[in-house]
Amino acid sequence: MYSYEHKIRVRYGETDKMGVVYHGCYPLYYEEARTEMLRSAGISYVGLERQGIMMPVTEMHVRYIAPAYYDDLLTVRVTIKQFPGARIIFHYQLRNQDEKLINEAELTLVFVNEATHRPCRIPQVLAAILAPHFDK
Amino acid sequence: MYSYEHKIRVRYGETDKMGVVYHGCYPLYYEEARTEMLRSAGISYVGLERQGIMMPVTEMHVRYIAPAYYDDLLTVRVTIKQFPGARIIFHYQLRNQDEKLINEAELTLVFVNEATHRPCRIPQVLAAILAPHFDK
Amino acid sequence: MYSYEHKIRVRYGETDKMGVVYHGCYPLYYEEARTEMLRSAGISYVGLERQGIMMPVTEMHVRYIAPAYYDDLLTVRVTIKQFPGARIIFHYQLRNQDEKLINEAELTLVFVNEATHRPCRIPQVLAAILAPHFDK
Amino acid sequence: MYSYEHKIRVRYGETDKMGVVYHGCYPLYYEEARTEMLRSAGISYVGLERQGIMMPVTEMHVRYIAPAYYDDLLTVRVTIKQFPGARIIFHYQLRNQDEKLINEAELTLVFVNEATHRPCRIPQVLAAILAPHFDK
Repeated sequence: MYSYEHKIRVRYGETDKMGVVYHGCYPLYYEEARTEMLRSAGISYVGLERQGIMMPVTEMHVRYIAPAYYDDLLTVRVTIKQFPGARIIFHYQLRNQDEKLINEAELTLVFVNEATHRPCRIPQVLAAILAPHFDK
Repeated sequence: MYSYEHKIRVRYGETDKMGVVYHGCYPLYYEEARTEMLRSAGISYVGLERQGIMMPVTEMHVRYIAPAYYDDLLTVRVTIKQFPGARIIFHYQLRNQDEKLINEAELTLVFVNEATHRPCRIPQVLAAILAPHFDK
Repeated sequence: MYSYEHKIRVRYGETDKMGVVYHGCYPLYYEEARTEMLRSAGISYVGLERQGIMMPVTEMHVRYIAPAYYDDLLTVRVTIKQFPGARIIFHYQLRNQDEKLINEAELTLVFVNEATHRPCRIPQVLAAILAPHFDK
Repeated sequence: MYSYEHKIRVRYGETDKMGVVYHGCYPLYYEEARTEMLRSAGISYVGLERQGIMMPVTEMHVRYIAPAYYDDLLTVRVTIKQFPGARIIFHYQLRNQDEKLINEAELTLVFVNEATHRPCRIPQVLAAILAPHFDK
């Protein structure tokens, strides 16, 4: 298991007329948090792309538990629970500054070779970093 | 069963550097399509809000099957498969101009009384319009 | 002078907690309207890109006169007032369904050769369509 | 003069198919930077809203000088050059991690009484903090 926490401040433009974060803005939070998780592990997503690896999202499942409000400071916990093969699943739990769980999600991404547009194996650099955290 | 089709043109700002529609932009398409579905049935979502009914999204499940590109003219099919009670589930299928299925989703929304912030029953006006389309 | 009108329906996700369209969402409306203006003239912006022409925005000036609300049906008038050279200026006036002027903007875009990343002249196909509308 | 610097990391979803930050995403950066400027001065924008003060943007002027890319770490310098009366003007300069100036903007916001929807004077708490920085 590999886990990481990242804090995100809610922007005004991310709220809607209900006065809460628009449900369609959460994917941006998930994206930012998993980028920072990779960075914390020494991996640059930009670098993966330069090596010709893309990671499109193929599935997203979100549960909206409680609203987030403008200027909330959210803690986004990202967890990889299974060692990734051709796909990698990120689990998310978002808590607000009162430690209240407000949102849960799972996103599945696949590794794609940019040149062939075909799925490929997890990049070696990423596998090497994750391996010690999993019993394979 | 109640079904509706709505066409949406992909904006440039909805694409990302992969050259395709950003996965986080699809909720805007779902939202636009269900608003137009309601409008086609004679129901204004703005009107529901004025009556003190809000409809927050509580769950969203998305499968990204194939990319959408800038300027694609997407056909969004929205379907209500079960007569709604305290919650209403919208099923989506998105096809591009080549009739290719590119995206599927289910969104669950609940009816909430704006004054009390508590769940409430489906508004009478909406129930009346949907009822003839379902065996109850 | 070359002018075009396009209608845009405000999405829920484009509003903010003030209950009005977020000021940062208007560029999407400008973009959609100028794409449709070009399309109405027989020019596909996608097609220009395929020919290696990009049109980045270099300057944007917006005056927010009155708010736009969720579900408003906005009429976006786009006008080209001067025959474009290396740059093209789009003037915008947005009115709501009550004919109230709510927003004005000017956006300057330049023609850029995708291969060289250098400014280039207006594409011939676009010049040919615009020419009859201007005293040169 | 009152000035503040804030760093913002570019999100993937903020890029477009040109491979750069979509021009319509910059207002979110301006918004985040001025919120943080106020916070650094001990003023919460949320708090102003709770006191019934809204600050809608009435004018925005942007010059796009060079592109910003995914994962760029932008430094946004916000400056208030004139002591605000009924309106407040924020000047922006954005630099990327190579210290290159990529974007400049001015945004004018007005103070509005939420109850009356009419312009009002600068809130006392804000005036008190800014006053020492200006010769009036």
